[in-house]
Amino acid sequence: SNQFYRDTWAEVNLDHVQENLKAIKELLPKDTAVMAVVKANAYGHGDIQVAKAALDAGATSLAVALLDEGIRLREHGIEAPILVLGSTRGSDAPVAAEYGISVTVHNESYIEEALKHLKESEQQLHIHIKIDTGMGRLGIRTKEEMKDIEYILQKQNKIQVEGVFTHFAKADEEDLEHSKNQLMKFLLILHSMNSLPPMIHTSNSAAAMRLPDAYFNMVRVGIAMYGLSPSPEIKNELPVNLKPALSLYTRVKQVKQIFAGDTVSYGGTYEAKAPEWIVTLPIGYADGWIRKLSGQNVLIKGKRTPIVGRICMDQCMVRVDEPIQEDTIVTLIGTDGQEAITADELAEKLETINYEITCQLSYRIPRVYKTGGKIVDIVNPLFRK
Amino acid sequence: SNQFYRDTWAEVNLDHVQENLKAIKELLPKDTAVMAVVKANAYGHGDIQVAKAALDAGATSLAVALLDEGIRLREHGIEAPILVLGSTRGSDAPVAAEYGISVTVHNESYIEEALKHLKESEQQLHIHIKIDTGMGRLGIRTKEEMKDIEYILQKQNKIQVEGVFTHFAKADEEDLEHSKNQLMKFLLILHSMNSLPPMIHTSNSAAAMRLPDAYFNMVRVGIAMYGLSPSPEIKNELPVNLKPALSLYTRVKQVKQIFAGDTVSYGGTYEAKAPEWIVTLPIGYADGWIRKLSGQNVLIKGKRTPIVGRICMDQCMVRVDEPIQEDTIVTLIGTDGQEAITADELAEKLETINYEITCQLSYRIPRVYKTGGKIVDIVNPLFRK
Ligand SMILES: Cc1ncc(COP(=O)(O)O)c(CN[C@H](C)C(=O)O)c1O
Ligand SMILES: Cc1ncc(COP(=O)(O)O)c(CN[C@H](C)C(=O)O)c1O
Repeated sequence: SNQFYRDTWAEVNLDHVQENLKAIKELLPKDTAVMAVVKANAYGHGDIQVAKAALDAGATSLAVALLDEGIRLREHGIEAPILVLGSTRGSDAPVAAEYGISVTVHNESYIEEALKHLKESEQQLHIHIKIDTGMGRLGIRTKEEMKDIEYILQKQNKIQVEGVFTHFAKADEEDLEHSKNQLMKFLLILHSMNSLPPMIHTSNSAAAMRLPDAYFNMVRVGIAMYGLSPSPEIKNELPVNLKPALSLYTRVKQVKQIFAGDTVSYGGTYEAKAPEWIVTLPIGYADGWIRKLSGQNVLIKGKRTPIVGRICMDQCMVRVDEPIQEDTIVTLIGTDGQEAITADELAEKLETINYEITCQLSYRIPRVYKTGGKIVDIVNPLFRK
Repeated sequence: SNQFYRDTWAEVNLDHVQENLKAIKELLPKDTAVMAVVKANAYGHGDIQVAKAALDAGATSLAVALLDEGIRLREHGIEAPILVLGSTRGSDAPVAAEYGISVTVHNESYIEEALKHLKESEQQLHIHIKIDTGMGRLGIRTKEEMKDIEYILQKQNKIQVEGVFTHFAKADEEDLEHSKNQLMKFLLILHSMNSLPPMIHTSNSAAAMRLPDAYFNMVRVGIAMYGLSPSPEIKNELPVNLKPALSLYTRVKQVKQIFAGDTVSYGGTYEAKAPEWIVTLPIGYADGWIRKLSGQNVLIKGKRTPIVGRICMDQCMVRVDEPIQEDTIVTLIGTDGQEAITADELAEKLETINYEITCQLSYRIPRVYKTGGKIVDIVNPLFRK
């Protein structure tokens, strides 16, 4: 269902998703494709809607973290190529093959296991071989490992190599030295291969905007598509004007006066020094509006207003200067008049990255999708069966 | 669907939920009912399954934070009384009435609005009046407000008062002085009422275990039902032996050797000083395994093992002393041999409360339900349509 009965919601501007993606495409040579990274529910923005918008805007394939996420896209009618970037079980190879979902391979043993299970399978499994050139995460690290994989693959026809890739650890840092080293290691292993698969890719958003040497024939774009900078460090030198796609809103609930000595919320950590107006907002840490955001500002009628006391599971309280109409809109992420609160601001406050801010917005927050200023879709995940 | 294709899952022991609830019931007089608090997806444990287990174990009603959460329970066949503890819109009063879901009322204007919308409604709306006795959150604060509400209700028959309640801000602190003050304020307003509704309730888990004067005829039990202490402060003086219901597991993925100077994860913040074994775990911050948990231990074969480098969106890395079998089970929350990692330990590390730890486990983590040591249900929220 697309109904929701609470006064907290995230608004996702699909035009911005598309504009960001097109702006990045502008930077790339014509033959470099864009894979839209929609893992983690499209970084909290909503996987199905973002995937469709991205494909419409020129992305030719999608990346997810889990086979489950890929299947979810297929079950919602998405037919574009999908790559699972994370690890999958060899025993699930037939499922991936059946859904036409490509998987990442990072060792020989996966292939052995997959081949066992693919015996009865009618569909070929498509794989991308992952090379770890300095991320210290999934991926093979040597030419020998690549040789072994090529050897075992050469004797069979159930698995087809569709791509080879790596991932940068520091493409979002001022200094691109480490990324260039990673690129070199990638090239060395690449050039040891007997034959190259059709898709070769290395770049995340940061590299797609900053390291043309790493384009090959595809880039994998996540954070920039959502209109956020890969890091604060490079924010001011990006070649595109990214437009944040997500805003977060709630509404003023009870407006009440409290008096000197009265406290607010659990533990009574906030105490009024004089008569004050306190407003309850229906959003809390179970929505991903985490407890550490206590003290953070929100925007009410274009003014910054502080959260007082501890953030509760489903609610938090702010102090306002004067009584205010119930149901007034409150902006938690987004723009109101001259003021804006960005995911970057929240990330800085929480000593984390903007990626985590949007990912953290929970299943309990309905997502409202807009195109051309109009609502085109609403998802309330609570009402999925 | 109840399939999942990733190697990370939460296990919820429904026997523990029931044992905790029964142990609390033992403390209460026979005529004090238990309302099981299953808001926020049952604090991350799974609303439907926990609600059913709690009702089976003697709870007579359920509490949620949002009308949406109540509707979700009804749509899954749950017929027990449900109370929405948070704010709802007056315009949604007919929806609440139709689903037989009781709502919390914290001002007169809600009632006026609700009455307007209930005109055409066949069903009566049941409400609980909330009194703010010191939480500084939702609720009326004076006898005058109560009088006004009683007055407006007296002239109509669409809305029926089913309960009156308050909520403690510090029942989980050593010193119960503040709670006793809240109780006093509650009694004063209560005794000013023309007539008392059938249900009077004030106690959360902490008060249910520590403040018999506050029992009235119902207590609202959340955290203790999940087997967690309302605070570290009172953990050692609780009259019941709480059994944590949730464990969190993943499996070892690629096991690889890295060498002196090699770094792990984004930013290369962790550097090996000698040859070391690094294992990738398929869980990351989009699962609620948040970035600040970097450095935290996990349990592998009964041993504490540290997370090294930054936690990624879908993965994190740990350092092990020697190579280890792929797919070995890793315990993130729970017991392995002599060692245990509790939600309390994670909360302490994150400077937060155990409530937030379990709430944060995201929609991406499948929940596996056990009773009598056997799997009775599996939920993979990704496959809800
Ligand atoms: C293999 C891979 N490719 C491409 C991307 C897209 O990165 P970006 O959002 O910076 O464009 C990611 C994202 N990674 C996340 C952030 C992680 O693993 O933590 C990735 O893991
Ligand atoms: C009105 C109300 N009653 C009862 C409970 C159950 O509390 P406990 O889990 O301590 O038994 C809660 C939980 N509150 C959460 C924790 C909050 O508002 O942050 C509540 O808001």
